[in-house]
Amino acid sequence: MKIKILWPGKTRNRSLKELQNFYLKKINKLETCDLIETKEARGLPESAEKKILAKEAQGLEKHIKDDYIVCLFDKGKEMNSEEFAHFLEEKGSGSACCITFIVGGFLGLADGILKKAHVLLSLSKMTFSHELTRIVLLEQIYRSLTIKHGRQYAK
Amino acid sequence: MKIKILWPGKTRNRSLKELQNFYLKKINKLETCDLIETKEARGLPESAEKKILAKEAQGLEKHIKDDYIVCLFDKGKEMNSEEFAHFLEEKGSGSACCITFIVGGFLGLADGILKKAHVLLSLSKMTFSHELTRIVLLEQIYRSLTIKHGRQYAK
Repeated sequence: MKIKILWPGKTRNRSLKELQNFYLKKINKLETCDLIETKEARGLPESAEKKILAKEAQGLEKHIKDDYIVCLFDKGKEMNSEEFAHFLEEKGSGSACCITFIVGGFLGLADGILKKAHVLLSLSKMTFSHELTRIVLLEQIYRSLTIKHGRQYAK
Repeated sequence: MKIKILWPGKTRNRSLKELQNFYLKKINKLETCDLIETKEARGLPESAEKKILAKEAQGLEKHIKDDYIVCLFDKGKEMNSEEFAHFLEEKGSGSACCITFIVGGFLGLADGILKKAHVLLSLSKMTFSHELTRIVLLEQIYRSLTIKHGRQYAK
C-alpha cells in the first residue's frame, strides 16, 4: 500500500507540527506514506477566497496523478474507524498507484479539486481547524494500519 | 458560564499536553474553565478493565457536583460545531453551577459515570485515542466560545 497526502502550506502550530511528525514516523514503519506540503497562497486577504483556492489548487494539481483520490470535506461521508480501516485496505491495495488524501487550507478546497475526488470524507460532524484536521487524519491512518497489521494501539 | 472538565490521569504525550495548555489558556480568556486531572488507576493489567474503570470512577465522582454532566462516549450524540456552540451556551448559562465534561481514560468510562450524564456526546464516528479526544474537545469548546463572543477563529 502506498499513501500520499497533500495539503497546501506547512503546519505552523509547533505542537501540531510535532504530532504530525510523530504520526508520520509511526505510519511509515508500517506502510509508505509521503506527505507533500504544496504551495500556499500568501499575501491575499481572506475576502479573495476564490483567488486563494485557485492558487492552492494549482499547487495541489501538480501532485495529483492517476491515484485514488480522497478529499477531506466537511459535508463528506463519515466512516467509523473500522470502516475507514477497511476502506484504506481496499483502495490502497488496488490497481491504482496509491491512495491520495487531500486536505484543504484554512479556506478549504477549490471545487475543481473536490470534483476530482473519488470520495469526499468527513472526519466529524464538527468543524476542526485545518491544522487539527491534518493530525486527526494522520492518527486515523495510523490507527487503521495498526488494525491491518494486527498491532496493539494505545486507546 | 463556568466550564469544568474532568479526566483521569495527566496527558502523557508532550505535544498533546502543550496543545492542551494552549487551548485551555485561550478558553480561559473568554470563560472560566477548570481542568481537573483525577486519579488514574495504575499498575493493573488491561484485562482488569472493570477494576480500572471502578477505580477511576471513584476519582471522578469526588468532583461531580450538581452540575450539568456531559460524558464523552463513542456511541453518543453527534453535533456539528454550531449545534455544540448553542448547546454550550444554553447549558452553561443555566441555573446549574456549571457544565461538566467528563472524558474517559484509555478504557473509557464506567457505566456508573455514564449513567450520571445528562448527555452522552460523541465528537466523531471515528475512535480517537483518549489523549487526542481531550484536545479535540478543548478545540471545540474554544471554537464555540469564539462563536459566542463573536471573535474570529483561525479555520
